[in-house]
Amino acid sequence: MTSPTDSASRTGGRAASELRPFEIIPHVSPHAEGSALIKMGNTHVYCTASVEDRLPPWLKGKGRGWVTAEYAMLPRATKERTQREAAKGKQGGRTVEIQRLIGRSLRAAIDLDALGEFQITIDCDVIQADGGTRCAAITGGYVALAQAVRLLQRTKKITSHPIKRQIAAVSAGVIKGTPLLDLDYTEDSSAEVDFNVIMTSEGNFVEVQGTAEGKAFPRATLDQILDLTATGLEELFAAQRAAIEAPKRH
Amino acid sequence: MTSPTDSASRTGGRAASELRPFEIIPHVSPHAEGSALIKMGNTHVYCTASVEDRLPPWLKGKGRGWVTAEYAMLPRATKERTQREAAKGKQGGRTVEIQRLIGRSLRAAIDLDALGEFQITIDCDVIQADGGTRCAAITGGYVALAQAVRLLQRTKKITSHPIKRQIAAVSAGVIKGTPLLDLDYTEDSSAEVDFNVIMTSEGNFVEVQGTAEGKAFPRATLDQILDLTATGLEELFAAQRAAIEAPKRH
Amino acid sequence: MTSPTDSASRTGGRAASELRPFEIIPHVSPHAEGSALIKMGNTHVYCTASVEDRLPPWLKGKGRGWVTAEYAMLPRATKERTQREAAKGKQGGRTVEIQRLIGRSLRAAIDLDALGEFQITIDCDVIQADGGTRCAAITGGYVALAQAVRLLQRTKKITSHPIKRQIAAVSAGVIKGTPLLDLDYTEDSSAEVDFNVIMTSEGNFVEVQGTAEGKAFPRATLDQILDLTATGLEELFAAQRAAIEAPKRH
Amino acid sequence: MTSPTDSASRTGGRAASELRPFEIIPHVSPHAEGSALIKMGNTHVYCTASVEDRLPPWLKGKGRGWVTAEYAMLPRATKERTQREAAKGKQGGRTVEIQRLIGRSLRAAIDLDALGEFQITIDCDVIQADGGTRCAAITGGYVALAQAVRLLQRTKKITSHPIKRQIAAVSAGVIKGTPLLDLDYTEDSSAEVDFNVIMTSEGNFVEVQGTAEGKAFPRATLDQILDLTATGLEELFAAQRAAIEAPKRH
Amino acid sequence: MTSPTDSASRTGGRAASELRPFEIIPHVSPHAEGSALIKMGNTHVYCTASVEDRLPPWLKGKGRGWVTAEYAMLPRATKERTQREAAKGKQGGRTVEIQRLIGRSLRAAIDLDALGEFQITIDCDVIQADGGTRCAAITGGYVALAQAVRLLQRTKKITSHPIKRQIAAVSAGVIKGTPLLDLDYTEDSSAEVDFNVIMTSEGNFVEVQGTAEGKAFPRATLDQILDLTATGLEELFAAQRAAIEAPKRH
Amino acid sequence: MTSPTDSASRTGGRAASELRPFEIIPHVSPHAEGSALIKMGNTHVYCTASVEDRLPPWLKGKGRGWVTAEYAMLPRATKERTQREAAKGKQGGRTVEIQRLIGRSLRAAIDLDALGEFQITIDCDVIQADGGTRCAAITGGYVALAQAVRLLQRTKKITSHPIKRQIAAVSAGVIKGTPLLDLDYTEDSSAEVDFNVIMTSEGNFVEVQGTAEGKAFPRATLDQILDLTATGLEELFAAQRAAIEAPKRH
Repeated sequence: MTSPTDSASRTGGRAASELRPFEIIPHVSPHAEGSALIKMGNTHVYCTASVEDRLPPWLKGKGRGWVTAEYAMLPRATKERTQREAAKGKQGGRTVEIQRLIGRSLRAAIDLDALGEFQITIDCDVIQADGGTRCAAITGGYVALAQAVRLLQRTKKITSHPIKRQIAAVSAGVIKGTPLLDLDYTEDSSAEVDFNVIMTSEGNFVEVQGTAEGKAFPRATLDQILDLTATGLEELFAAQRAAIEAPKRH
Repeated sequence: MTSPTDSASRTGGRAASELRPFEIIPHVSPHAEGSALIKMGNTHVYCTASVEDRLPPWLKGKGRGWVTAEYAMLPRATKERTQREAAKGKQGGRTVEIQRLIGRSLRAAIDLDALGEFQITIDCDVIQADGGTRCAAITGGYVALAQAVRLLQRTKKITSHPIKRQIAAVSAGVIKGTPLLDLDYTEDSSAEVDFNVIMTSEGNFVEVQGTAEGKAFPRATLDQILDLTATGLEELFAAQRAAIEAPKRH
Repeated sequence: MTSPTDSASRTGGRAASELRPFEIIPHVSPHAEGSALIKMGNTHVYCTASVEDRLPPWLKGKGRGWVTAEYAMLPRATKERTQREAAKGKQGGRTVEIQRLIGRSLRAAIDLDALGEFQITIDCDVIQADGGTRCAAITGGYVALAQAVRLLQRTKKITSHPIKRQIAAVSAGVIKGTPLLDLDYTEDSSAEVDFNVIMTSEGNFVEVQGTAEGKAFPRATLDQILDLTATGLEELFAAQRAAIEAPKRH
Repeated sequence: MTSPTDSASRTGGRAASELRPFEIIPHVSPHAEGSALIKMGNTHVYCTASVEDRLPPWLKGKGRGWVTAEYAMLPRATKERTQREAAKGKQGGRTVEIQRLIGRSLRAAIDLDALGEFQITIDCDVIQADGGTRCAAITGGYVALAQAVRLLQRTKKITSHPIKRQIAAVSAGVIKGTPLLDLDYTEDSSAEVDFNVIMTSEGNFVEVQGTAEGKAFPRATLDQILDLTATGLEELFAAQRAAIEAPKRH
Repeated sequence: MTSPTDSASRTGGRAASELRPFEIIPHVSPHAEGSALIKMGNTHVYCTASVEDRLPPWLKGKGRGWVTAEYAMLPRATKERTQREAAKGKQGGRTVEIQRLIGRSLRAAIDLDALGEFQITIDCDVIQADGGTRCAAITGGYVALAQAVRLLQRTKKITSHPIKRQIAAVSAGVIKGTPLLDLDYTEDSSAEVDFNVIMTSEGNFVEVQGTAEGKAFPRATLDQILDLTATGLEELFAAQRAAIEAPKRH
Repeated sequence: MTSPTDSASRTGGRAASELRPFEIIPHVSPHAEGSALIKMGNTHVYCTASVEDRLPPWLKGKGRGWVTAEYAMLPRATKERTQREAAKGKQGGRTVEIQRLIGRSLRAAIDLDALGEFQITIDCDVIQADGGTRCAAITGGYVALAQAVRLLQRTKKITSHPIKRQIAAVSAGVIKGTPLLDLDYTEDSSAEVDFNVIMTSEGNFVEVQGTAEGKAFPRATLDQILDLTATGLEELFAAQRAAIEAPKRH
């Protein structure tokens, strides 16, 4: 008898500690200072970095910069159509929560004093959703951010090196007692525990969020999950580096 | 001396009556009942058709269906970042005007009585903008709509044939006195007259909008523009048919 | 047998090419720099022009002025009460579309550089609606605008002559195949094709909008409609001139 | 020496206890079930009554009706243009306060049980403002309401007599120590005390609102004001009766 | 037989002219420049005064200050839970009306020129509601305001004496023909007439609002009510003075 | 030399693993089905539980209940006044994030199937803020929730036992390398790492959120923090039990 926790039972015969097939396509936007389309399985997120020399009022004249993020899903990124937030007239709670997380995470990559008085906005638009969109947005958003900073350096707008470390994120969960890396939507829907782990390339945590879905979890589970995510993140850091080194095609 | 109205002076040496290189890629969304990514030069619009059996209150129980459209641009679809409408808390006047036009135009393709009590929402999200986004949205949106109706037929949800004709749209303008087909953003910015022509595959008009930008235009100009657009639309109708016949890849 | 397209069958025995009885009453507002109440049959629109020396931020310090328009209907201007937009908390799509059209049209009358750093807001409030409100708003709004500019000249705030031409608008449509000028609400509801033509007093087009209502139309129809509207507009231009010359009564 | 409290010093030589020239023109709207244009000097308010058989959810199925009111000013009803509330996206505090007062006052005219399951909405739109708009709205709104109820009776939709009494309103104030009836805008701006008195035709109070503007007032002032308003209201009750008896012209 | 107008029939055997047991607890907030928790029976309102040297734009640079107020109820201050206004996305009409009244009333206490360029915001949050919340907010808000001004004086930010007089408020009503002071919620629900009287410590009126609930009232009733409230207000003025003199505990 | 991480340097000489003085006062609201005022040092949160038999649309008719939460701060709960969210017209991102966390956490305490078709809303209003408001809201909110369920049982509205376990929350952080329990606002402002740990009385995690503030943290830090919070939570569980057993005073 096969159970959902057998490796055979994950889509494509994926192992418990295996990421979905993924790809980070850099330089997808002809206009943005940095951009990447990240595909984690069927989750596709279009990330752009926009540099402005206009800071929010509360940061003006302090000699330091700012990184912020916005997140949205196309209405039909999901199995059922989701109402467009612009039409509803406000961003939902989930959107607000996610975009605050992305911004907070990416600010850990950068020395805002070294950036100087620039604001970089990372827009993460989910073209297709199949679980793990917030983690994909962070991993792809970092690539867009790093490119934008490189452009500032290449065009001599800054002479500093504000990027201090890579940031990537991955989800994990527990299904029928077995910890699994990088859940897709179907897995996520039946998970008992749901984690998002955001890490630096030095192996330190930027943010750890673990939530029990219906059943509280013991500390042993937390430990297993943190072991599992570390390996997946190594692969993502390597892919980020390759994407950032890739030449602009336009 | 070359002027912007010489064919040599258009990007890529395009003739006055020539469309930009274009492509309609069908079935781009794994979830939507119909979908197409339309590229008109550097304008890329992601169009999905979502079928619901839930009608707006004012149409319930009348035995007929409805087609509506929503339009948005990703914040960095444009040269400068545009503020996200969901963050602003409302759709701008331009957005509202455009999505009403798209919905109105696509309803001309379909017999709503024959459709029966289904609502089809066409979402047109501009991934990159380089002029002519509303026309591209109509042309691509028609493909998504036609696919969605075919799916209703194939899955036996309807036995009627509600699609009555193709609908496509193209822009044209006048620069330094010369009418030009399918303006890109740079051309559009310097045009004296700006037209959007929405037509049926039978050669009749669904909507004609001609606007003087700074200088009113005589009837002769209107006549030249209408001649010009008719040829471009023929090409688009052929591309729509090819896209609709293409098999779903997923 | 009489059909709706017989002249006899229009309200008051109106001919196909005949405007409704109309009147432009100038100087109706004791406060506004320019104002007119325009009556096209049972459509009554109260138009005021308000001059301010405060420009929108994006126009400040450029030495040129701006003309913008706002449009609304009193809740009971219509047969059934319409919900008040201020109570709903937003302007509907139709309102936004119309007021953008009015503003765009009236800017064609004026040399904004010659106006200098003034903003003129044209408010068009529909007191009674019986079809053709947007065209009436443009025709009446022009009178208010021209008066306001005259006041700027008379009070020596400007020495230039920014009004370059008159602008007026009229609707037309096709009912049972026959083109008719200046539709009232009942006619409009059963029209197959609906046009709004905005013209300069020099006979050039500022904007042409033709929309098929349910049935696409051939180019011959477009030609007939444009012939029809030209004559009606001549009458409106004459009435505008008379209204502008009329002395202020207050 | 003349002071603003001399009768000679009021506009038009008006006495302290004299209303401005006023007029109530009934049946001004071709669509509304009841309507009146009330002119109190240069304050002009267009009042309509709209009858619907659709009640607010909290009143459904209780066998009784409802009367509510909405109030707005045209943007240029005032000396300086006021921003349109529909454009701002919300009704201001003053508007909300006034329309609640109008609704509350007019409900005192009517037996809601006798009305039966109808909702009557009184729209009061200020075309020109010169002080006292809320009182004019109540006095004119009553006429529209009474006409609408008569229409329900004439068309046999109700057989009851829900109108129980007339309601009218007038303002008064104190300038340099002298109580004055029915202030215009200039007077109102310099008044030390500002009263709105809403009364029934039986001489009882529906609402009394007295506000010190800068200087608190003794009880003697309150008594003088209440004497003053009683006489003015008698005239308004007579004018209301005449307006309601007038035949519909359309 | 006892009726609701017998003193014996009021909760706790209260006489018609007797206030509920009340208490003004000063200095309840560790942060605010002034604060008081006022308890009128089971109505508890938490009032704070916040001083800012940032004025609203329309008052800047005029050398004078401003006092404004905001009012809200905790969702479960009431017998049934009330929807949170922040969640609804707007303040209701009742809230707007009340907070305008509080601000207007408290400005009567103070010489804004003497205050200088400070804005003081009085926040009145109803923790428990049992009738008379707006009057309690004014009475308690005055204490917070007076403390804040004293703090400005003690810290030498101002050398003037802007507080000119005390302001307090009390409600009264008529039940079965008998005037009663300081209604609780149950009494208020069955009152025929409802008054709010806001007075200065010199015995003058700042605002008088009398509203007939279902039945208009004669002038004699108004006179009785004004007699009744004067005595209650004396007690409140004394309690305010005691609260202001009390030392800060933190 | 003393550093902020010496126990002596915490306010009141608190040890690193010591909670602030705290108190849970039950039954503070006369109206709510459950209520508690929780004081964690100078953080005071007023929590009420409101039971309704009206479910959100998406849960109707499924035989199970729902628990949701709302969170707000009084404007002057903070050192500087915060703008009222009802006045701004929307809840901020921080508010939305916190109230979603509270609702999610408290749902872990309860068997929604056993609850049956009731919705319980936990309102958490911060009267004073000094760090750790979201954790205090969860700990206090649980008490209100448990009381409300007891009331349903006592009044025989349910016969089941839906409360399955206690839920409490506490924050912790790292300052100059030393982990500290239950940070106050001053400590929180200088912390390098910030954790919120939500646990069940059985010692399992409901949610773990750890965020690096400026500096990413190694796994060893995470382990230390989780040890620290476990002891603090034991004390809070005991205080919850005492508060729930306390008799209602009203």
